[in-house]
Amino acid sequence: MSTAAAGTPPVTVDTLNPKVLKCEYAVRGEIVTHAQNLQQELQKNPDSLPFDEILYCNIGNPQSLGQQPVTYFREVLSLCDHPALLDKSETHALYSSDAIERAWQILDKIPGRATGAYSHSQGIKGLRDEIAAGIAARDGFHASGDNIFLTDGASPAVHMMMQLLIRSEKDGILCPIPQYPLYSASIALHGGSLVPYFLDEETGWGLEVDELKKQLEEARSKGITVRALVVINPGNPTGQVLAEENQKKIVEFCKNEGLVLLADEVYQENIYVEDKQFHSFKKIARTLGYTDDDLPLVSFQSVSKGYYGECGKRGGYMEVTGFSPEVREQIYKVASVNLCSNVSGQILASLVMNPPKAGDESFESYMEERDGILSSLARRAKALEEAFNSLEGITCNKAEGAMYLFPRLHLPQKAIGAAQAAGTAPDAYYAKRLLEATGIVVVPGSGFGQVPGTWHIRCTILPQEDKIPAIISRFKEFHEKFMDEFRD
Amino acid sequence: MSTAAAGTPPVTVDTLNPKVLKCEYAVRGEIVTHAQNLQQELQKNPDSLPFDEILYCNIGNPQSLGQQPVTYFREVLSLCDHPALLDKSETHALYSSDAIERAWQILDKIPGRATGAYSHSQGIKGLRDEIAAGIAARDGFHASGDNIFLTDGASPAVHMMMQLLIRSEKDGILCPIPQYPLYSASIALHGGSLVPYFLDEETGWGLEVDELKKQLEEARSKGITVRALVVINPGNPTGQVLAEENQKKIVEFCKNEGLVLLADEVYQENIYVEDKQFHSFKKIARTLGYTDDDLPLVSFQSVSKGYYGECGKRGGYMEVTGFSPEVREQIYKVASVNLCSNVSGQILASLVMNPPKAGDESFESYMEERDGILSSLARRAKALEEAFNSLEGITCNKAEGAMYLFPRLHLPQKAIGAAQAAGTAPDAYYAKRLLEATGIVVVPGSGFGQVPGTWHIRCTILPQEDKIPAIISRFKEFHEKFMDEFRD
Repeated sequence: MSTAAAGTPPVTVDTLNPKVLKCEYAVRGEIVTHAQNLQQELQKNPDSLPFDEILYCNIGNPQSLGQQPVTYFREVLSLCDHPALLDKSETHALYSSDAIERAWQILDKIPGRATGAYSHSQGIKGLRDEIAAGIAARDGFHASGDNIFLTDGASPAVHMMMQLLIRSEKDGILCPIPQYPLYSASIALHGGSLVPYFLDEETGWGLEVDELKKQLEEARSKGITVRALVVINPGNPTGQVLAEENQKKIVEFCKNEGLVLLADEVYQENIYVEDKQFHSFKKIARTLGYTDDDLPLVSFQSVSKGYYGECGKRGGYMEVTGFSPEVREQIYKVASVNLCSNVSGQILASLVMNPPKAGDESFESYMEERDGILSSLARRAKALEEAFNSLEGITCNKAEGAMYLFPRLHLPQKAIGAAQAAGTAPDAYYAKRLLEATGIVVVPGSGFGQVPGTWHIRCTILPQEDKIPAIISRFKEFHEKFMDEFRD
Repeated sequence: MSTAAAGTPPVTVDTLNPKVLKCEYAVRGEIVTHAQNLQQELQKNPDSLPFDEILYCNIGNPQSLGQQPVTYFREVLSLCDHPALLDKSETHALYSSDAIERAWQILDKIPGRATGAYSHSQGIKGLRDEIAAGIAARDGFHASGDNIFLTDGASPAVHMMMQLLIRSEKDGILCPIPQYPLYSASIALHGGSLVPYFLDEETGWGLEVDELKKQLEEARSKGITVRALVVINPGNPTGQVLAEENQKKIVEFCKNEGLVLLADEVYQENIYVEDKQFHSFKKIARTLGYTDDDLPLVSFQSVSKGYYGECGKRGGYMEVTGFSPEVREQIYKVASVNLCSNVSGQILASLVMNPPKAGDESFESYMEERDGILSSLARRAKALEEAFNSLEGITCNKAEGAMYLFPRLHLPQKAIGAAQAAGTAPDAYYAKRLLEATGIVVVPGSGFGQVPGTWHIRCTILPQEDKIPAIISRFKEFHEKFMDEFRD
């Protein structure tokens, strides 16, 4: 007897893959759907709500809030999309000469100059070599294009590694809490166990190796095979930048415990404090004398972050070192099943890892755009942090890097009670009320994980600088009313 | 005790996800790696091999073999990548006026005109609406942008559906044999069971509903829950175009048996025979009177195929109809975890579904490019088919559509013996010998599946037309020598 004959629809939520049902992705979750509905309402009836626009501070999406792309990068992409332009004299009136030269160089790296062809499954070899040269210049240690896998942003790269490493729920991945929900979602989708380690809010979201050890032992005692450690540096949603000494201890820990180190380094250009610098985990490992034979290490990078913020281009790469040739072959195979990442994204990844140099025609304007964005982000981070810290019942660590603040909400018992009555987590309740009062969209801390009984929100630092004062005053006004309503 | 202390490397092939190990992807498999090695050899030492170039007939990658992109599409992409051009008068000297107008229209559909922002998880709403309008114009039935999910090519869309539908190896997906190995790979990666149905080579790769029924019953008798039927139309690797009556029976079969119909329609523009036409399965279902409530149906489309062949752009979509809102929400969630597909690919998908119209400035040159490519492909398909059929021990069905021929090799027993002695399948042995003698890369039939005891190769029709005579003569010469060597 057929299913249909029995009257059951072929597919219901109950007959979907339960791993999909289990997966959650707060950054685009319920609160965002609610915001989109309010936005539609606002379009239909502009006076219906107590604000005139929705401010999406839920996601690291700089250009959606008005950040302009870097001109040089877009010139090169535009030329590579339409190479016939390169033969025309009029082109020089519209494009800078070094962008034209760079487009030629890139086309020469592409077999047949065919930007519309599937590339090698790892990405175009010449572009991978250029990225490797950029990594070597950054780190002072050799890098090889053979170790680069170009991907459509960092997310598919993370999925790929989870798919390779996770066999069952008995395989665990050590992840920071709070974490970027891509990790929890990907681990859930691939059926593994997230083994949490807690960042210490008191010490500026410190990552303590003792905590890693404790959680590793605890997972092992439950029969979990811990396969990898995820570190996000600079941190998301927490914004801390790890100290070099700390990174060394983390590398030693992975080496001693036989863990793959999955290093999310997509915010490597986003550092806002004088006393901190970005060091890649590969540089740290090589500084310690570890070679390719000692430690499996994957570094994720993306064109979506940094000062470029090219989220829509979906470019990125992972640098894969320390695996056997046989394992590498399996990574290659999984990459092959999707053929290749998009070639424009590949080109852009090579550009961000090898931007204009001093002496190039575009160098000065490029540096002006770059530094303008980064210094503005630093000012925005500081202004928002100070604003949060000025409010009753909110404490907020500095954003040393990345694109987010993760303030803690010390909520009155009455507010917690109101949330419970509404059947929602207290931080989700707060975020919903904030949205409905101000149009500001933030993500409740519960989407990232937090120490039980503490409550947070993640707020990006990305609204354009001229809007920050208004955002702060809207936020303050809301928060004060909220506290007045619920103060114990 | 830690793993490392015990001396085992953290990751070996034996400790990888066994589903990854099980997955195979012949289109980029062993023979291609061998070809890449020969190509490197050829670069170092041009006289070392009996040919002077490698001809990649293993993969549907038109632009890698010299096909030029459609000018209008690339103009629009180039402008959207660098919108600052749109304000400059010099731009009119380089771009056609309707491409400029179209770029404006597209930018107006993108919130904030931000082509560098993450879009809605399903893709930019205005572009989805344009695609839906294109589908409606093609089919004569309503289509909705809300049902479109834009993806980085068709492959991630197929993975997404497999991930949703497959819970365990007890869930089966009916797939044609021969099939495009994306399906077997994706089913393996998600841990399901491929339930094969055989296409009938005798009747031009006919798809018989009796065969579907037989295989469905057999799978059910083994305790497999068959969840979906994959149909590839036009066929890959088999090139047949289904007749309307046949499609109706397939739709009825899915409806009666409670199966999701997964319709791979990426070759919808590639039809080479007068007496056949493409009909989408959604059109067939609506013609039969079935609505959204009757039948879950997913149609996959890609910018990589057709006359455009923009593989490197990774654009595509799936049109999803007939699922409950709750199931749709889960599809949306999985799409969200990867944020969005690349925006250039999204724009290109909207262009191929809504190309220039009569009266537009670019219309004539566009039609000339389009028809030039399609008619040349038809001639190449015919020339190669006739060549294959002229050879001893080869029979080859017509390529009515798609980009491939799938000739059957009636190999002498001695050749089969030689393959066995070399520890390889007879068709893989033949493909390797062909590559080493001629530089022509084809994929052994075993990578697609075939009736046991039959042997095939898949060869694309994509080498440029002026090269076809030389390819045919190289192929003939090789084949005759091969037969002379092994004739029983």
